[in-house]
Amino acid sequence: MEPDPYDRRCGSRQVLDRIGDRWSVLVVLTLADGTKRYGDLARRVDGISQKMLTQTLRGLERDGLVTREVHASVPPRVDYTLTALGRSLLDLVSGLEAWATTHLAEVEAARDRYDTRMSGH
Amino acid sequence: MEPDPYDRRCGSRQVLDRIGDRWSVLVVLTLADGTKRYGDLARRVDGISQKMLTQTLRGLERDGLVTREVHASVPPRVDYTLTALGRSLLDLVSGLEAWATTHLAEVEAARDRYDTRMSGH
Repeated sequence: MEPDPYDRRCGSRQVLDRIGDRWSVLVVLTLADGTKRYGDLARRVDGISQKMLTQTLRGLERDGLVTREVHASVPPRVDYTLTALGRSLLDLVSGLEAWATTHLAEVEAARDRYDTRMSGH
Repeated sequence: MEPDPYDRRCGSRQVLDRIGDRWSVLVVLTLADGTKRYGDLARRVDGISQKMLTQTLRGLERDGLVTREVHASVPPRVDYTLTALGRSLLDLVSGLEAWATTHLAEVEAARDRYDTRMSGH
């Protein structure tokens, strides 16, 4: 059977969740130019909580998009790198980021119009 | 200032949430071939609750991606159509769907390996 995300039983829906998730998008994009440490990612993705970053990285690792390498230094250094599968996402997530930034003003203008209409003016 | 989704204060993060959301992706793709009624969307996006479909459509309408038209029939008919802004998303959301279905097997294999490793075998 072909994967079909319109079918509630198909695992491709969960894959859609992973790749469309805001934090996954920003972490994958941050890893685009090479291996990063946990702290690099925490600094770059402004406002992500430690819990959410850890959870996002674990999800990306579990799904085969990122590798995690622990170095036996003191303190231990943990490096994250995109896999080939993760790199195959780069065009798409760059596209999402580009769309979001390019069309932000249009989306915000549409929201203002909607909210004005809904408030009965 | 340029929009920057890495900055927690930038609205482009919310835009990322909208366009990457699993339900938005499936609804926008369903509208790709033209206007649909509420019931058409509910049938196509298997397993979406009425509450979630209503909420997704309202979000898409508020963000200017979809228009909602109520016809004065009995019972009233409600049609949803992509706007030009919504159509500008089609390549991206098709790309997400294609990635999810094409790479599902790889992602599932990676999960199995991860879960086996984590369970200590």
